[in-house]
Amino acid sequence: MGDPKIIEVKESVFADNNREADSLRKELKEKGLYLINLMSSPGSGKTTILSRLIKDLAEDIKIAVMEADIDSDVDARRIDEETGARVVQLHTGGMCHLTAAMTRQGLEALSAEGYDLAVLENVGNLVCPAEFDTGSSINVTILSVPEGDDKPLKYPLMYQVCDVVILNKMDTLPVFDFDLEKAKENVHMRNPKAKIFPVSAKTGEGFEPLEAWVREAVAAWKERV
Amino acid sequence: MGDPKIIEVKESVFADNNREADSLRKELKEKGLYLINLMSSPGSGKTTILSRLIKDLAEDIKIAVMEADIDSDVDARRIDEETGARVVQLHTGGMCHLTAAMTRQGLEALSAEGYDLAVLENVGNLVCPAEFDTGSSINVTILSVPEGDDKPLKYPLMYQVCDVVILNKMDTLPVFDFDLEKAKENVHMRNPKAKIFPVSAKTGEGFEPLEAWVREAVAAWKERV
Repeated sequence: MGDPKIIEVKESVFADNNREADSLRKELKEKGLYLINLMSSPGSGKTTILSRLIKDLAEDIKIAVMEADIDSDVDARRIDEETGARVVQLHTGGMCHLTAAMTRQGLEALSAEGYDLAVLENVGNLVCPAEFDTGSSINVTILSVPEGDDKPLKYPLMYQVCDVVILNKMDTLPVFDFDLEKAKENVHMRNPKAKIFPVSAKTGEGFEPLEAWVREAVAAWKERV
Repeated sequence: MGDPKIIEVKESVFADNNREADSLRKELKEKGLYLINLMSSPGSGKTTILSRLIKDLAEDIKIAVMEADIDSDVDARRIDEETGARVVQLHTGGMCHLTAAMTRQGLEALSAEGYDLAVLENVGNLVCPAEFDTGSSINVTILSVPEGDDKPLKYPLMYQVCDVVILNKMDTLPVFDFDLEKAKENVHMRNPKAKIFPVSAKTGEGFEPLEAWVREAVAAWKERV
């Protein structure tokens, strides 16, 4: 598609974010568009995981992507080149997180009518994005092996608000001091009901259960309440 | 020392942070205490680098440490157990960054009179900490190999405000798609005068030039202007 579409999203200062988020979520439910808010540290593999998911699920699920960053469009370019999926790059103007209003602006630019799933790749940051409801159907976070198994201890809110935790870069387990059982325990200390999927976005290891969960979640969202 | 000292640092709402930072920096200059503000993504190796630096420099430089996190005291415990250095744990009450006023509270709790170097290990976050002058003598950031060489493209301000960039986990270069030359180029695009030190905190590779720089910087700070 050539250069990716870049949207400068702006925070609306007077908005009540929680109300805006609830209203957006309701609209998305009516449209049957499932929205995943994907959060993590910088460099934990958000884009690589997403790229593999899109390719694996392409036949069954129509996926569109919003890549949020403070600057650059490297992630939107990657998604476009690797998957051909519909993608827009959101620039936050230096902001460390996305609000529901910003997410709405992104969705409007994305125009994902008729799509099943939209993924918002949030700014790489374990602190601020967790504080703002984006209106997503679910929050998902990634913890990569090189980051260490203690992250849920240091960034409690991120793990409290995420019901799905992907443990990425499992292929590098022999290289790092990362205790898989300890990691799971730390995640569940913050959120006992969190589903945990250990994967390697590089090798594809562990993607089957993760993809089964995505299919199921997207299908459940389309069912009338 | 048993349980590390935990300080709940609070932001003073009305403070002019830049003025507070300049005033703190001036006081530290008069005391001859060099303050490094160490920033990075979560899990890039701030504590491991620090632990090695303290041990290697122990004979020549008296180092005290402030570990900032939203929750937990794992880093302060590690520094204490591995190095025996004077250390306090700062809790930010959910805050994503430290201000100069918070740093001052940490320094008061640390009581590092007669020390040569204090290191503030900031909250793991590539966005917000870069926006607040802590009053430090210098800002240092770490980019670890697993995070990818594109981080300076996505988090411009962090690289603009840091004059020293440590590239960590160099021992894992064979495992990841990380282009060292590209990484240096991306850093220098944001800050042409940034000094870059490729190291492995695990193996000790590359620490000699980094430690030579620390010695030099600490000595220069003690010289009267």
